[in-house]
Amino acid sequence: MKIAIYGYGNLGRGVEIAATAAPDCEVLGVFTRRSPDSVKTACNTRVFHCNDIEKYKEDIDVLIICGGSATDLPKMSPALAESFNIVDSFDTHADIPTHFAATDTAARTGGHVALISAGWDPGMFSLNRLYASAILPNGSDYTFWGKGVSQGHSDAIRRIDGVLDARQYTVPVETALDKVRAGENPTLSTREKHTRECYVVAEKGADLARIEREIKEMPKYFADYDTTVNFITQQELDEKHKGIPHGGFVIRSGSTGVNGENKHIIEYSLKLDSNPEFTASVLVAFARAVDKMYRRGERGCKTVFDVAPSDLSPLTPDELRRTML
Amino acid sequence: MKIAIYGYGNLGRGVEIAATAAPDCEVLGVFTRRSPDSVKTACNTRVFHCNDIEKYKEDIDVLIICGGSATDLPKMSPALAESFNIVDSFDTHADIPTHFAATDTAARTGGHVALISAGWDPGMFSLNRLYASAILPNGSDYTFWGKGVSQGHSDAIRRIDGVLDARQYTVPVETALDKVRAGENPTLSTREKHTRECYVVAEKGADLARIEREIKEMPKYFADYDTTVNFITQQELDEKHKGIPHGGFVIRSGSTGVNGENKHIIEYSLKLDSNPEFTASVLVAFARAVDKMYRRGERGCKTVFDVAPSDLSPLTPDELRRTML
Repeated sequence: MKIAIYGYGNLGRGVEIAATAAPDCEVLGVFTRRSPDSVKTACNTRVFHCNDIEKYKEDIDVLIICGGSATDLPKMSPALAESFNIVDSFDTHADIPTHFAATDTAARTGGHVALISAGWDPGMFSLNRLYASAILPNGSDYTFWGKGVSQGHSDAIRRIDGVLDARQYTVPVETALDKVRAGENPTLSTREKHTRECYVVAEKGADLARIEREIKEMPKYFADYDTTVNFITQQELDEKHKGIPHGGFVIRSGSTGVNGENKHIIEYSLKLDSNPEFTASVLVAFARAVDKMYRRGERGCKTVFDVAPSDLSPLTPDELRRTML
Repeated sequence: MKIAIYGYGNLGRGVEIAATAAPDCEVLGVFTRRSPDSVKTACNTRVFHCNDIEKYKEDIDVLIICGGSATDLPKMSPALAESFNIVDSFDTHADIPTHFAATDTAARTGGHVALISAGWDPGMFSLNRLYASAILPNGSDYTFWGKGVSQGHSDAIRRIDGVLDARQYTVPVETALDKVRAGENPTLSTREKHTRECYVVAEKGADLARIEREIKEMPKYFADYDTTVNFITQQELDEKHKGIPHGGFVIRSGSTGVNGENKHIIEYSLKLDSNPEFTASVLVAFARAVDKMYRRGERGCKTVFDVAPSDLSPLTPDELRRTML
């Protein structure tokens, strides 16, 4: 299948690398809003201006849209789904129904398949919530995130007066994880599930106590959490906190038996060195499924819930049954 | 949907309990080879003789076959798939292609949907091997089983002269698990992955040293493993080792990046108080999918790889997107 990449940040770069390595995948090009000459790709993929994309309509089997969920994807996915089969990683959970409806209309109008909200959450974590709740209907779901970098929280710290740079880690609380794994089905507050660790580079002479207070009292981002603030040098930040790791846990604790006497724990976890590269790898697997579904005559907007797992693999159904079942 | 259960051992009983609890499921009855009067069901489900099943052809949406993989299912599933939509838990991995082909022919002849090899391995573990390898093609798969009771190994011990009763636990080796989780991609021998713990009740005056030796030297079952043998009383066995717990881990360790510089660990684990009741819960979820697929016009034999996850849930696609994505 021929794929193209729309948008070239960390995620687009990850898609380029993953798709280039895939045996059944050819990367036609990267489409960018910037001047194509200014973009250096990781695998020497050609770069085009996004305004030219309609010219390549016949050459692209699946277009992987690598934009942000706040302002890019709500416009891009519906606009592009009319002319292309698309995949995106739209991750604003509350707005998924709206995004689905808009993209579905466009995909049906143009006769294409669109798959939205692929990645790990939404994405693989969602799949695990679904599988586990379908198997153990009598139970409770727990999702923990981290340890990992939250870009949004890091940005929020950087906007504080006197802050030069910052990195924020979301950390799951081990004792809460242990209670869930022990089948105790605890009711956990926001504060009991995650803590927030901040590494902050302050301007010389800045009022550190004020910065720390402003971070810890910031509504929504930090006020509901136990937050620790560490002031470090730019050098230390660059040396020790440059990566974009993430991960987390989806745990379902449920019971079976006439009186619910048997407990079961299903746990899915991710430990990722690179959040965008892992997300990109998920996008490429789902692009493969979109291509197969389109060739079978399916149309409209889909999510990870609608994709038969065998469509994600380059192996044939026969090979899959022989080697993985 | 109306389901029926064919075979009533631990698994059939688990299916009865899970299906009775499901909001969208009605259990028409249990079909048994025994005299129906002799079978007492857990939820007061009616019991019929298996010879009468064809009479209920029009009343059963999905028949869940709860027989053994060694001799029952290879005959039962192809025989019944001609007249019924069926689900089974055939778990002899090496024979899946043969079982698939026979069941597929029967299901297509009769115009039905058959789903084979549902459960946790094959089943949920297989799904996790597939998802993880599709996402991280550059990586290695590891499956560990336990800690849990192996019925086959327990039976093998019970056949030894002088043994009255026995229970065998398969135990994953923690240090091996740790190496895999650390992304070391170790090459592990059979002995390095699992140990075997045996609890044995011997006849009074039996030669314990001989029994222990016979266990530890038994080819295939124990010879390739580090095995510990504990002689205990029947009372202790009944008190402490009566359950049928099981579980295990599917771990994929893979890398991404231009030079594979970023490592990722995907881990799926199960901790089950009751192996048959959990397997039964998986069968009921896949029976729901079979019913939906049949109503959409699909025919033939399927596996867990062919089922879109949304078909497993009693929730609508809309509800799933709103609550779980």
